[in-house]
Parts: sequence; C-alpha cells; structure tokens
Amino acid sequence: MSAEPSPAPPAAPAAGEIGLVEARDFHCRLPFTFDSGQTLPGFTLRYETYGELNPTRDNTVLICHALSGDHHCAGMHAGDRKPGWWNNLIGPGKAVDTRRFFVVCANVLGGCVGSTGPSSPNPETGHPYGVAFPFVTIRDMVRSQKLLLEHLGVASLAAVIGGSMGGMQVLQWGIEYPHFTKRMLAMATTGRESAQAIAFNEVGRQAIMQDPAWNRGDYPREGGPRVGLAIARMMAHITYLSDASMDRKFGRRKKDTADRSGNGFDVQFEVESYLRHQGQSFINRFDANSYLYITRALDQFDLAAAYGSLEQAFAPVLGETLVLGFTSDWLFPPEQNRAVALALLRAGKRASYAELDTDLGHDSFLLESPELYDLVRGFLQRSEKQVSDFSI
Amino acid sequence: MSAEPSPAPPAAPAAGEIGLVEARDFHCRLPFTFDSGQTLPGFTLRYETYGELNPTRDNTVLICHALSGDHHCAGMHAGDRKPGWWNNLIGPGKAVDTRRFFVVCANVLGGCVGSTGPSSPNPETGHPYGVAFPFVTIRDMVRSQKLLLEHLGVASLAAVIGGSMGGMQVLQWGIEYPHFTKRMLAMATTGRESAQAIAFNEVGRQAIMQDPAWNRGDYPREGGPRVGLAIARMMAHITYLSDASMDRKFGRRKKDTADRSGNGFDVQFEVESYLRHQGQSFINRFDANSYLYITRALDQFDLAAAYGSLEQAFAPVLGETLVLGFTSDWLFPPEQNRAVALALLRAGKRASYAELDTDLGHDSFLLESPELYDLVRGFLQRSEKQVSDFSI
Repeated sequence: MSAEPSPAPPAAPAAGEIGLVEARDFHCRLPFTFDSGQTLPGFTLRYETYGELNPTRDNTVLICHALSGDHHCAGMHAGDRKPGWWNNLIGPGKAVDTRRFFVVCANVLGGCVGSTGPSSPNPETGHPYGVAFPFVTIRDMVRSQKLLLEHLGVASLAAVIGGSMGGMQVLQWGIEYPHFTKRMLAMATTGRESAQAIAFNEVGRQAIMQDPAWNRGDYPREGGPRVGLAIARMMAHITYLSDASMDRKFGRRKKDTADRSGNGFDVQFEVESYLRHQGQSFINRFDANSYLYITRALDQFDLAAAYGSLEQAFAPVLGETLVLGFTSDWLFPPEQNRAVALALLRAGKRASYAELDTDLGHDSFLLESPELYDLVRGFLQRSEKQVSDFSI
Repeated sequence: MSAEPSPAPPAAPAAGEIGLVEARDFHCRLPFTFDSGQTLPGFTLRYETYGELNPTRDNTVLICHALSGDHHCAGMHAGDRKPGWWNNLIGPGKAVDTRRFFVVCANVLGGCVGSTGPSSPNPETGHPYGVAFPFVTIRDMVRSQKLLLEHLGVASLAAVIGGSMGGMQVLQWGIEYPHFTKRMLAMATTGRESAQAIAFNEVGRQAIMQDPAWNRGDYPREGGPRVGLAIARMMAHITYLSDASMDRKFGRRKKDTADRSGNGFDVQFEVESYLRHQGQSFINRFDANSYLYITRALDQFDLAAAYGSLEQAFAPVLGETLVLGFTSDWLFPPEQNRAVALALLRAGKRASYAELDTDLGHDSFLLESPELYDLVRGFLQRSEKQVSDFSI
C-alpha cells in the first residue's frame, strides 16, 4: 500500500487489502490459430494473480475484463494511488476472497496493456502489426486464457467472473471448456449486442478511422488518432452511465471557469469537463487499433448465430451460472441478461438470474454495492457438494 | 408534384396535398440585438407559407423546426422526390388543415438553409461570420420569427407547433408573446436538457472542433470539418431512434457486401451502412458552425433557471397548451414532457399532457401516426369559444 519515497520496506497491506502486486508475462511459444484462420507464431498475455493455488489446483477464479479494462484488477502497483479496477470485489475477506481463491486476470489478446495486440511489434517487419494483426474474437480471448491457466498449473476453474465484454468471455468459457468451468458469473452482459450497441461502436470506429492520424492503422506508438480515440471514448462513456446518474453527478451545473453569459464553445457545463477528461486520460493508456479490434470482437459475438440458437450454444455447459443484470443498464439492458439465463434454463442447465436495482447504468457492476458483493459471495460459497455432479 | 422534365405545366396537386411550394426570404433591415447583447444590423429568415391568411388575420399556425430541420415542412419543391419534413401532418384536410390555417415555417436564426447564420457573409469582411456570429438562444429564434409574422400581417397565432427544439420554441412563444399565442403544441421536448443530452451534444461539438478542417470556425463554404460533422450526426442520429426500432429496422443483419468472416473494419452490419449514409448526406446540407451554435442554444435553454422556476416561467402564459411525450423517447423522455405540463397546471394555466405509446424514439413526432394526427386535429379544432378568455 505504501508508495512513499521512503527507504523503509513496504508496509504490510491493510486488513482486507491485497497490498502490492506486480504483473507478469506469459509467453506462449506455440503457434496460435485465430477463429479467422490467421495464425501467430506465439503470443504474450500480461496477467496478475492474487492468493495461492491450492494443492488440488481447483480454487482458481478467473476474472475477465471489459473493453477498456486490463489485467490489474486488484491490489496496488508500487507508486500508484489507486488500486486495480475491481479491488472493491477482490481481496482477503472480500466477496472474491483471496484467502480462499487463487485469482487470475489477464489482459486480453488484441489488447494494449502488455498482451499481444495490434500495437505489438510484428516480428516480420519490426513495426507494430496495425491492421495486419489477426482479427480477434471473444473465443480467441478465451482460448488464449486457457493456455495461460494450463501454464499456471490450474486444473479447473472454481469460477470465471466478468462484466460486459468480460461476461461474454464467461459465457464462452462455459461453452468451450465445460469440464474446466465450475461456475460462471456473468454481469451486465448479453448473448449478442443490439443494433444500437453496434451503432455506438461503429461511430467510435469511424471517429478513429476518419482521423487522418490513423493512417490506415499505421502510426507511431506515441502518436496515432488521439483525437478520434478521445471522441470515441467520450461517446462510449455516456453509454456506460445513465441519465439519472449523470443528472445526480453533474446535473446542469456550470464550471466555475465558464463564461456566465453561456457563450462560447469552451467548457460550460461540468459534464463537458468530465467527458473531456475521460477522453484525454483514455488516449494516454489505450491503443486506437486495439479499440477497433476489441469493439469488432464485441459486435461479432453472437452465440445464437454461432451455434444455431442460444439453447444449442449452451448445450455443452456443465457448471452453474449466475447472471446479474442492472435495471439502469441501457447498453446491455436487463432483458438481454435475463435472456441468457432463460436460455440456460431451457437448455436444462443450472442457472439463476438476479436483477439489481441501481441507477448507475452499465458500469454498475464496477461500483460499490453490498448487494452485489453478497450475491457474488453466496454464489462462490455454494458447497462443492451442491455442484458435485459437475464432473459427471 | 410533377418533377418530370416535361414542357407541360405542373399537374394540379393530388387530393390532400399542397403541391408545389417555394421558399421566400424575409429581410429584416432593423438592427437585431441578441440575448447575448451582440447586435446584427439586420437578418434574413427563409420561410414558406401554405394556405391563406384570413381577413381577421388570426388563422396562422407557426411551425417550429428541430435541430436539423428547416423551413420546408410541407409541399414539394420543383424537382424534388420527397415532400417537406412534416408533410404527413400539414395539408388540405390533414391534421394541420391548410384549407383552414395559414401555415408559416421559417429556418431558424443561426441556421444554414437560407436564414442568417454563421455561414452567412459578414458584411464587414465579406467572409462567413464563423464564430464571430452572435450567440443564439431559443428566445432569439422566437423573437426573429415574431418580426417575420408581423411582416406577414399576422395579428395572432391560432397555434404554434413544434417537436424537440421546435417544442422549446413553442414554450418560449407562450411566455414571450402571451397575447399573440392562442395555442401551444409542444412535442418530444423539455424545459431543460438533462446532463446526458448535454453530454451527447458536447461530444458532437468536440468531433467538429477537433477536426483540423474546422480551423476555429474559419473554413470555405464547400469545405469545413466534414468528417467531424458526419461523426456528430451519426452519433446524434442514434439518440433520435430507440433500441427497439433499430432492432426492428436493422437487427444484426449483415450487408450483402460484408466479408462473411466478419473481419475487416469496413461495413459489416446494415446499421453501420445506414449511419454512414446519415452522416454523409448531412454534411452536404448542414453547416458545422450552425451545428455548434444550435446545439449550444439547446443546451443553454433552461426555463427554470431563466425565470426562477418553471412555474414562474409560465406565469405570463394566456393560451392553452398541449404537451405530447413519446414513451420510447430517451433523449427528452416522457417525464420531462410531463414536467412541463405539470408546471403549467401548477401555474394555473390550461394545459394537457398526452403520452403516445411508440417504440420509435425521439423522432416519433415526425413519423406516421393516426393517433398523433387525431390529437393535433382535436387540439386545433377546439372552438374559439372554449379559448375565449384567452384575450382577457
């Protein structure tokens, strides 16, 4: 927890906190064939782990991140002021209890935070792959994570947990590796995006690709379509919130610096300032080509189309599933979450659906919520006995 | 109606249709002082009229257009294939019956379809005003329309009708010119935008202003930030529809031309193709600086802030008001429409609210709806007697 420039050794983590963590890299030296048929000679996944793998190697909880997330989901990096993005959920004594579980989280294939993606150097040219990078699917992400877990000696997953795009990975895990996946916890997700969600992603892609600095995906690491990426992020960020939460957080409050006459096109409202900050901070941590690839993976994800129907998609599932929807989520609304759980039930699987009454929009799964924590804790604490026919 | 390249005279309009119409220009030669305090030596409003002004000069219906609309709301322009944008509502025997009413519609001040706006030449420089144009408010739009109506010899308005930004003008008419305004019909509107609506407008403005071709508002008439304006329009267009209507219209259907592997960042889904078309056609008819000015007018419109409260804002109103909300409108949702009607009622005014159950989103007010037509017709047919104390 200590990031002071002091010579003293780091203090012990506060009670309930993981403390300092470090990322590691998994280098897979075997060729990897993507769903598109394209192949890479190998790949890297950057990941973090918290807790210890037990002797039976079956206490792993895999965390899957969303579009703009990464592998750093809990604990502190030395020098940082903020912990990982799901630190409220993960830690000793927390809903995902690191005293009991071995927690793993990896930056997705196609990402830009240490894992191989379009900003990685193409060994054939020495330059970033750019749009020569193979197209990535949710299933590609899941298959690469499986190789990481094998490398770590994991025998099976006690649970796989994720929200939004992370939830899509959760569902794909249950389908792809049924004997490996005991519990699936998917939040704020969908079996396939609606036209509206595709439309927002497409406007973001157009903002990036129409930025002259995109240059057909060929740009230097520190350059690129920063304007287009910021616009894409500003817009997408609105879809992660809700009308009600934005009104509570910002309302129509003016910035102190705003010209009181209301003239000019500089920042007038606090919500404008907030969005501009979101856009600016994003371009310093995210690669525009990764944004294109990952939003395409989101849009192309369609379990019903891929397997004939949602029920057929879930036919192989052996574990049990908890789907959590959030009432104010208008990007992947409750109906879409409920539809996933209903299809699992129709397919004869153990599945539950719970809907949390929040007004925080799509990002509700990331936010402080004792109700959410209790549901996660309860789902993970169901005894092995209760899921014992899992391995039959 | 005839747009054939034939030497024959135009055919008589079809029954129920207005037929050929032409726009005219009103040149106001008097100085106009904007709410900002800035002044122009005069201005032009481009407008159309349908029907005839009656001898008592009190049968005028003023139509107020929305952000991207214009003065051509009904009838056909020679050579055009499509009629004006509200032709389904306005015409002989239609809900706004041109056999009875003298219908007037003008392009707003600050607009770019013939009325004076930032793309008009600045007489001092000979170049377009650009961002030297005075800032425009909804009240400025209304006050300039009043000068047009006086020019046309209109003694009072039988009704003022508009949706979205047009609805804001309707409310401002009732407040600003109570003795002139018998009936106000405001659809899909609000007394002030929420933070979310401001946020979407701000992303659109940023897309325009961050486009290098914007050049701080100084660009040639045929050039300008076409990329940024197209992005702004694509995004805004999503907010005018609904998740349900987009799913019905496009769903996840792929374009025939799409690479079936789902790879590539070219158009894959029909909804993408539709949005790109919306963006491209918009940049050929709209000026980017006008988009900045008019969205700022929308964001700054706040009757409660301007007058102390919504009830106080409505204190001067003499006419009666019908507010129409649409269940699937998530840009100016039903609650915001209802709040307007409730404030009028609390202020002791004659006001009604009706909510139409549609799944077409914000743009519902523009679409075919016999239920909507009946409500408009009924509101306009209420006898003079019923509103007789209007002039007291």
